[in-house]
Amino acid sequence: MIGPVCEEILLRKKEDFLIPAEKIANVMDINPLSHAFLVLSKVKYSKIPVLDREEKIVGLIGLSEIVDQMFDLDAIDPDNLNDKTVADVMETDFVTVDESNTLEDLLHLAIDHAFLPVVGKDRHFVGIITRRELLKAVNRLVHDLEQENLIISKKDLSKTKIEVG
Amino acid sequence: MIGPVCEEILLRKKEDFLIPAEKIANVMDINPLSHAFLVLSKVKYSKIPVLDREEKIVGLIGLSEIVDQMFDLDAIDPDNLNDKTVADVMETDFVTVDESNTLEDLLHLAIDHAFLPVVGKDRHFVGIITRRELLKAVNRLVHDLEQENLIISKKDLSKTKIEVG
Repeated sequence: MIGPVCEEILLRKKEDFLIPAEKIANVMDINPLSHAFLVLSKVKYSKIPVLDREEKIVGLIGLSEIVDQMFDLDAIDPDNLNDKTVADVMETDFVTVDESNTLEDLLHLAIDHAFLPVVGKDRHFVGIITRRELLKAVNRLVHDLEQENLIISKKDLSKTKIEVG
Repeated sequence: MIGPVCEEILLRKKEDFLIPAEKIANVMDINPLSHAFLVLSKVKYSKIPVLDREEKIVGLIGLSEIVDQMFDLDAIDPDNLNDKTVADVMETDFVTVDESNTLEDLLHLAIDHAFLPVVGKDRHFVGIITRRELLKAVNRLVHDLEQENLIISKKDLSKTKIEVG
């Protein structure tokens, strides 16, 4: 459980957590790998979402999965990229979050995932939540918490008399 | 300023923050790009450190910088990778941290950097601090802080009488 005071501060700018879909480069599952290679070489993300024609998220793909396909025994052959589609090599076992996920879920999942794809109804792709945005909230938390609150160790509490009123 | 209670909890396992150099794939500045391409296609990091022959860190390199060099007008030509070295394309304007940096520095820098290279004397490469390890500490903080402490808003403090003794 995240304590309620921590949670309130972390969620103060929760509207900034989501980077909306329209700001994120994506590829389609039916695109040839050569297209995904071009897109990924131009963006600064190491992985991007793969969408189907209904804009549902169906996978993730990164440069390393594509580059793997270029290796032909010991040579590098970029022509291999024309024979395969994104769907052939994309990662399909990936985590998504939706509006039912708590802040606790997000902070926990962010340990192992550089970004969390956010989905709506029927896995429609809504956007991503990145470690960057979560870390901004964490910086706010550790600066503001003790500015705004007095913190008393529960160990010392037996020796402390508090009257609120 | 990070409050002292937050700082104490965040630093409880600070020995886990550093992933030591011997566990991290790296390339040398004098390596041909084709070698770096092979190394980066096999590791799960999107960027890795570039060291010189004295094991000082002199740059960072990722698949996207290498792939950029393969584009020859509109064609993809992997032979271009044999003509250049890592030093020709590595990123040289990058942030490092050392033992003088505070937790506040680390949390702030981690907003914009997926990992922070740690250097010792004469920029000798010691290891990296990743967002992953920092987020583990953050998860500990938000779980333990209010378990272990009573938190009283300073706004309510004028109405609160506290006696420690």
